[in-house]
Amino acid sequence: MNDLKTQRMIDRFMEEAIKEAQKSLSEGGIPIGSVLVLDDQIAGRGYNQRVQKDSAVLHAEIDCLENAGRLSPEEYQRAKLYTTLSPCSMCSGAVLLYKIPEVIIGEHITFSGAEDHLRKNGVRLYVFNDERCVKMMKDFITNNPSLWNEDIGEK
Amino acid sequence: MNDLKTQRMIDRFMEEAIKEAQKSLSEGGIPIGSVLVLDDQIAGRGYNQRVQKDSAVLHAEIDCLENAGRLSPEEYQRAKLYTTLSPCSMCSGAVLLYKIPEVIIGEHITFSGAEDHLRKNGVRLYVFNDERCVKMMKDFITNNPSLWNEDIGEK
Repeated sequence: MNDLKTQRMIDRFMEEAIKEAQKSLSEGGIPIGSVLVLDDQIAGRGYNQRVQKDSAVLHAEIDCLENAGRLSPEEYQRAKLYTTLSPCSMCSGAVLLYKIPEVIIGEHITFSGAEDHLRKNGVRLYVFNDERCVKMMKDFITNNPSLWNEDIGEK
Repeated sequence: MNDLKTQRMIDRFMEEAIKEAQKSLSEGGIPIGSVLVLDDQIAGRGYNQRVQKDSAVLHAEIDCLENAGRLSPEEYQRAKLYTTLSPCSMCSGAVLLYKIPEVIIGEHITFSGAEDHLRKNGVRLYVFNDERCVKMMKDFITNNPSLWNEDIGEK
């Protein structure tokens, strides 16, 4: 993230992740979005499908990885995962399974996932704390506390 | 696992997980199966869907959790997950996300997943090292090395 070109590219991909989150929200779903970037191109995109598909496992990052299809180990190992919210244990585990070296996070204020576990395993993390991401989640959690708790396995 | 009744129940559920793995194998898929048990009843069952659904995320445990549907946090927290093979980082992360307190593993000889990480986070693990589970995986890996490596993100 040292030069302006890289910074702009990262901003552009985070914008795409935010679009995914907004799409989920417009469908009545949980507003978390994700894109997988391979060689500076979007290889997959997705969003939380708990409401839309009654899914217990399709968090945004998992949906994104599923939509990206079966990539080779080499491809995952040079990919970057963008997500509007700090990834939970499951999604962080998927990052470690495929050895994705870099995760760019929209915010970790409303929820902080398994970031320490990722860092300890050598994954580079960048956290934006983008105000739109924070506001989307704050509003959603305020209005849907039990749905949100279900999504993160909290009572 | 102290009394005979509990031991027999565990054996019964592991048999069901093995049936799932065999079903996958019969379809040309990766022979790993899983069942989720809630209050001594099977709440969900699944198997690796990499081949069958071209899925990058539906490992047996994830497929099983998806098929179990949206359970409440309380339900996950008294559930037990059976799997024929030691769970990878992603599947272990799903166990931690939902705070599933117990995982029963068919074998961890051909592949050992994130067991230490699960134990450190308070999950109880029981490992069978069932000969059928070991043989299924050994044969599969020998005959399909690149498919297996893809499933665990290895080059």
